[in-house]
Amino acid sequence: MFDRIDHIGVAVAPEDLEDQIAYHRDVLGLELVHRETVESQGVEAVLFDVGENHVELISPLGPETGVAKFLAKNGPGMHHVAYQTSDIVSALATLKERGVTLIDEQPRVGIRNSRVAFLHPKSTGKVLTELTEPAH
Amino acid sequence: MFDRIDHIGVAVAPEDLEDQIAYHRDVLGLELVHRETVESQGVEAVLFDVGENHVELISPLGPETGVAKFLAKNGPGMHHVAYQTSDIVSALATLKERGVTLIDEQPRVGIRNSRVAFLHPKSTGKVLTELTEPAH
Repeated sequence: MFDRIDHIGVAVAPEDLEDQIAYHRDVLGLELVHRETVESQGVEAVLFDVGENHVELISPLGPETGVAKFLAKNGPGMHHVAYQTSDIVSALATLKERGVTLIDEQPRVGIRNSRVAFLHPKSTGKVLTELTEPAH
Repeated sequence: MFDRIDHIGVAVAPEDLEDQIAYHRDVLGLELVHRETVESQGVEAVLFDVGENHVELISPLGPETGVAKFLAKNGPGMHHVAYQTSDIVSALATLKERGVTLIDEQPRVGIRNSRVAFLHPKSTGKVLTELTEPAH
Protein backbone atom coordinates (compact mmCIF):
# COMPACT_ATOMS: atom_id res chain seq x y z
CA MET A 1 0.00 0.00 0.00
CA PHE A 2 2.91 2.37 0.78
CA ASP A 3 6.07 2.96 -1.21
CA ARG A 4 8.08 4.78 1.42
CA ILE A 5 7.95 7.27 4.25
CA ASP A 6 7.19 10.46 2.32
CA HIS A 7 8.12 12.78 5.16
CA ILE A 8 8.08 13.55 8.81
CA GLY A 9 6.32 16.75 9.80
CA VAL A 10 7.98 18.89 12.45
CA ALA A 11 5.96 21.55 14.27
CA VAL A 12 7.81 24.83 14.65
CA ALA A 13 6.71 28.09 16.28
CA PRO A 14 6.72 30.99 13.80
CA GLU A 15 9.46 32.80 15.72
CA ASP A 16 11.70 29.72 15.48
CA LEU A 17 11.12 28.93 11.81
CA GLU A 18 14.21 30.65 10.42
CA ASP A 19 16.41 28.97 13.04
CA GLN A 20 14.95 25.57 12.20
CA ILE A 21 15.46 26.18 8.49
CA ALA A 22 19.09 27.06 9.19
CA TYR A 23 19.52 23.93 11.34
CA HIS A 24 18.15 21.57 8.69
CA ARG A 25 19.97 23.24 5.81
CA ASP A 26 23.30 24.31 7.29
CA VAL A 27 23.80 21.82 10.13
CA LEU A 28 22.14 18.64 8.89
CA GLY A 29 23.07 19.60 5.33
CA LEU A 30 19.66 18.87 3.82
CA GLU A 31 18.62 20.59 0.61
CA LEU A 32 15.74 23.06 0.95
CA VAL A 33 13.57 22.20 -2.05
CA HIS A 34 10.25 23.94 -1.51
CA ARG A 35 8.44 26.51 0.57
CA GLU A 36 4.70 27.07 0.46
CA THR A 37 1.81 28.55 2.40
CA VAL A 38 -0.71 25.69 2.64
CA GLU A 39 -3.93 27.50 3.57
CA SER A 40 -5.95 24.27 3.79
CA GLN A 41 -3.71 23.11 6.63
CA GLY A 42 -3.13 26.52 8.16
CA VAL A 43 0.63 26.31 7.86
CA GLU A 44 3.72 27.76 6.33
CA ALA A 45 5.57 24.63 5.15
CA VAL A 46 9.22 24.18 4.24
CA LEU A 47 10.43 20.97 2.60
CA PHE A 48 13.90 19.46 2.68
CA ASP A 49 15.08 16.42 0.73
CA VAL A 50 16.66 13.43 2.49
CA GLY A 51 17.23 11.02 -0.38
CA GLU A 52 13.73 10.20 -1.60
CA ASN A 53 12.25 11.25 1.75
CA HIS A 54 11.58 14.70 3.14
CA VAL A 55 11.45 16.68 6.32
CA GLU A 56 8.54 19.12 6.37
CA LEU A 57 8.72 22.01 8.81
CA ILE A 58 5.24 23.33 9.55
CA SER A 59 4.62 26.61 11.27
CA PRO A 60 1.09 27.81 12.11
CA LEU A 61 -0.49 30.71 10.21
CA GLY A 62 -2.66 31.65 13.20
CA PRO A 63 -3.59 30.68 16.77
CA GLU A 64 -6.70 28.70 15.79
CA THR A 65 -4.88 26.29 13.50
CA GLY A 66 -4.28 22.67 14.43
CA VAL A 67 -0.54 23.13 14.51
CA ALA A 68 -0.81 26.15 16.84
CA LYS A 69 -2.89 24.03 19.22
CA PHE A 70 -0.36 21.20 18.95
CA LEU A 71 2.46 23.61 19.82
CA ALA A 72 0.53 25.03 22.78
CA LYS A 73 -0.03 21.54 24.16
CA ASN A 74 3.19 19.73 23.25
CA GLY A 75 5.74 22.33 22.31
CA PRO A 76 7.83 22.00 19.15
CA GLY A 77 8.87 18.64 17.74
CA MET A 78 7.69 15.76 15.61
CA HIS A 79 4.07 16.26 14.59
CA HIS A 80 3.20 13.57 12.02
CA VAL A 81 4.48 10.90 9.66
CA ALA A 82 3.35 10.72 6.04
CA TYR A 83 3.35 7.51 4.02
CA GLN A 84 3.55 7.78 0.26
CA THR A 85 1.09 5.92 -1.94
CA SER A 86 0.41 5.92 -5.66
CA ASP A 87 -3.36 5.57 -5.12
CA ILE A 88 -4.65 7.45 -2.12
CA VAL A 89 -8.34 6.81 -2.83
CA SER A 90 -7.79 3.07 -2.83
CA ALA A 91 -5.56 3.24 0.26
CA LEU A 92 -8.20 5.20 2.20
CA ALA A 93 -10.88 2.70 1.23
CA THR A 94 -8.70 -0.20 2.37
CA LEU A 95 -7.87 1.43 5.69
CA LYS A 96 -11.51 2.30 6.35
CA GLU A 97 -12.48 -1.28 5.61
CA ARG A 98 -9.88 -2.38 8.16
CA GLY A 99 -11.48 -0.22 10.83
CA VAL A 100 -9.36 2.94 10.76
CA THR A 101 -11.13 6.20 11.61
CA LEU A 102 -10.31 8.74 8.91
CA ILE A 103 -10.02 12.47 9.53
CA ASP A 104 -10.32 13.01 5.78
CA GLU A 105 -12.72 10.67 4.03
CA GLN A 106 -11.64 12.21 0.74
CA PRO A 107 -8.16 13.46 -0.13
CA ARG A 108 -7.57 17.19 -0.20
CA VAL A 109 -4.89 19.24 -1.88
CA GLY A 110 -1.61 19.35 0.04
CA ILE A 111 1.83 20.74 -0.54
CA ARG A 112 3.14 20.77 -4.15
CA ASN A 113 -0.32 19.77 -5.40
CA SER A 114 -0.14 16.39 -3.73
CA ARG A 115 -3.31 14.71 -2.56
CA VAL A 116 -3.30 14.12 1.18
CA ALA A 117 -5.50 12.70 3.93
CA PHE A 118 -5.04 12.22 7.67
CA LEU A 119 -5.92 9.21 9.80
CA HIS A 120 -7.31 9.73 13.29
CA PRO A 121 -4.67 9.26 16.03
CA LYS A 122 -7.08 7.09 18.03
CA SER A 123 -6.69 4.47 15.28
CA THR A 124 -2.93 4.78 14.96
CA GLY A 125 -1.47 4.46 18.47
CA LYS A 126 -1.48 8.28 18.81
CA VAL A 127 0.81 8.72 15.82
CA LEU A 128 -0.73 11.44 13.64
CA THR A 129 -0.54 9.77 10.24
CA GLU A 130 -0.92 11.26 6.78
CA LEU A 131 -1.20 9.54 3.43
CA THR A 132 0.16 11.43 0.48
CA GLU A 133 -0.03 10.83 -3.25
CA PRO A 134 2.44 13.06 -5.08
CA ALA A 135 1.22 15.11 -8.05
CA HIS A 136 1.79 13.27 -11.28
CA MET B 1 25.64 13.39 4.82
CA PHE B 2 22.39 11.40 4.91
CA ASP B 3 21.06 8.93 2.36
CA ARG B 4 17.49 8.69 3.60
CA ILE B 5 15.26 8.63 6.63
CA ASP B 6 16.20 5.26 8.10
CA HIS B 7 13.19 5.05 10.40
CA ILE B 8 10.82 6.74 12.72
CA GLY B 9 10.75 5.41 16.26
CA VAL B 10 7.36 5.03 17.91
CA ALA B 11 7.12 4.68 21.69
CA VAL B 12 4.66 2.00 22.79
CA ALA B 13 3.69 0.86 26.29
CA PRO B 14 4.48 -2.84 26.83
CA GLU B 15 0.79 -3.68 27.25
CA ASP B 16 0.01 -2.10 23.87
CA LEU B 17 2.86 -3.64 21.90
CA GLU B 18 0.96 -6.54 20.39
CA ASP B 19 -1.89 -4.21 19.33
CA GLN B 20 0.57 -1.84 17.70
CA ILE B 21 2.29 -4.72 15.91
CA ALA B 22 -1.09 -5.85 14.59
CA TYR B 23 -1.94 -2.30 13.47
CA HIS B 24 1.28 -1.82 11.51
CA ARG B 25 1.25 -5.31 10.01
CA ASP B 26 -2.43 -6.01 9.39
CA VAL B 27 -3.92 -2.53 8.98
CA LEU B 28 -1.12 -0.51 7.38
CA GLY B 29 0.09 -3.67 5.63
CA LEU B 30 3.77 -3.21 6.50
CA GLU B 31 6.06 -6.22 6.58
CA LEU B 32 7.42 -7.11 10.02
CA VAL B 33 11.09 -7.78 9.30
CA HIS B 34 12.83 -7.93 12.65
CA ARG B 35 12.31 -8.11 16.40
CA GLU B 36 15.05 -7.66 18.95
CA THR B 37 15.70 -6.84 22.59
CA VAL B 38 18.16 -3.94 22.47
CA GLU B 39 19.59 -3.90 25.99
CA SER B 40 21.79 -0.86 25.32
CA GLN B 41 18.66 1.22 24.68
CA GLY B 42 16.45 -0.54 27.21
CA VAL B 43 13.83 -1.51 24.66
CA GLU B 44 12.08 -4.31 22.91
CA ALA B 45 12.16 -3.17 19.26
CA VAL B 46 10.07 -4.30 16.33
CA LEU B 47 10.96 -3.23 12.78
CA PHE B 48 8.66 -2.91 9.77
CA ASP B 49 9.71 -2.14 6.20
CA VAL B 50 8.20 0.79 4.29
CA GLY B 51 10.10 0.66 1.02
CA GLU B 52 13.70 1.39 2.02
CA ASN B 53 12.53 3.04 5.24
CA HIS B 54 11.32 1.51 8.49
CA VAL B 55 9.00 2.02 11.38
CA GLU B 56 10.56 0.96 14.67
CA LEU B 57 8.24 0.27 17.57
CA ILE B 58 10.09 0.62 20.86
CA SER B 59 8.69 -0.62 24.12
CA PRO B 60 10.55 -0.12 27.43
CA LEU B 61 12.16 -3.06 29.23
CA GLY B 62 11.76 -1.37 32.62
CA PRO B 63 10.54 1.79 34.36
CA GLU B 64 13.97 3.45 34.54
CA THR B 65 14.58 3.37 30.81
CA GLY B 66 14.49 6.49 28.68
CA VAL B 67 11.49 5.27 26.73
CA ALA B 68 9.53 4.53 29.92
CA LYS B 69 10.18 8.09 31.07
CA PHE B 70 9.14 9.42 27.66
CA LEU B 71 5.89 7.45 27.86
CA ALA B 72 5.19 8.70 31.40
CA LYS B 73 5.65 12.30 30.28
CA ASN B 74 4.22 12.28 26.74
CA GLY B 75 2.20 9.12 26.33
CA PRO B 76 2.64 6.89 23.28
CA GLY B 77 3.54 8.26 19.86
CA MET B 78 6.45 9.38 17.73
CA HIS B 79 9.67 9.29 19.71
CA HIS B 80 12.56 9.93 17.30
CA VAL B 81 13.69 10.13 13.70
CA ALA B 82 16.78 8.32 12.46
CA TYR B 83 18.81 9.46 9.46
CA GLN B 84 20.87 6.89 7.63
CA THR B 85 24.52 7.52 6.87
CA SER B 86 27.28 5.39 5.41
CA ASP B 87 29.89 6.93 7.74
CA ILE B 88 28.57 7.70 11.19
CA VAL B 89 31.94 8.66 12.67
CA SER B 90 32.47 11.31 10.03
CA ALA B 91 28.87 12.54 10.34
CA LEU B 92 29.19 12.93 14.11
CA ALA B 93 32.43 14.86 13.71
CA THR B 94 30.83 17.18 11.16
CA LEU B 95 27.78 17.80 13.34
CA LYS B 96 29.92 18.48 16.41
CA GLU B 97 32.01 20.94 14.41
CA ARG B 98 28.76 22.67 13.43
CA GLY B 99 27.81 23.12 17.07
CA VAL B 100 25.47 20.19 17.71
CA THR B 101 25.47 18.73 21.22
CA LEU B 102 25.87 14.97 20.95
CA ILE B 103 24.32 12.50 23.37
CA ASP B 104 26.68 9.86 22.02
CA GLU B 105 30.16 11.11 21.15
CA GLN B 106 30.94 7.66 19.80
CA PRO B 107 28.53 5.33 18.02
CA ARG B 108 27.19 2.37 19.93
CA VAL B 109 25.67 -0.87 18.75
CA GLY B 110 22.01 -0.60 17.80
CA ILE B 111 19.41 -2.85 16.27
CA ARG B 112 20.61 -5.42 13.69
CA ASN B 113 24.23 -4.60 14.56
CA SER B 114 23.91 -1.08 13.18
CA ARG B 115 26.03 1.68 14.66
CA VAL B 116 23.89 4.44 16.15
CA ALA B 117 24.24 7.75 17.98
CA PHE B 118 21.75 10.29 19.28
CA LEU B 119 21.89 14.07 19.02
CA HIS B 120 20.68 16.19 21.94
CA PRO B 121 17.16 17.57 21.42
CA LYS B 122 18.31 21.03 22.53
CA SER B 123 20.33 21.20 19.30
CA THR B 124 17.59 19.83 17.05
CA GLY B 125 14.45 21.87 17.74
CA LYS B 126 13.30 19.24 20.26
CA VAL B 127 13.28 16.48 17.65
CA LEU B 128 15.08 13.50 19.17
CA THR B 129 17.42 12.59 16.34
CA GLU B 130 19.42 9.43 15.75
CA LEU B 131 22.09 8.71 13.19
CA THR B 132 22.39 5.14 12.04
CA GLU B 133 24.93 3.32 9.92
CA PRO B 134 23.62 -0.08 8.90
CA ALA B 135 25.81 -3.13 9.40
CA HIS B 136 27.84 -3.92 6.30
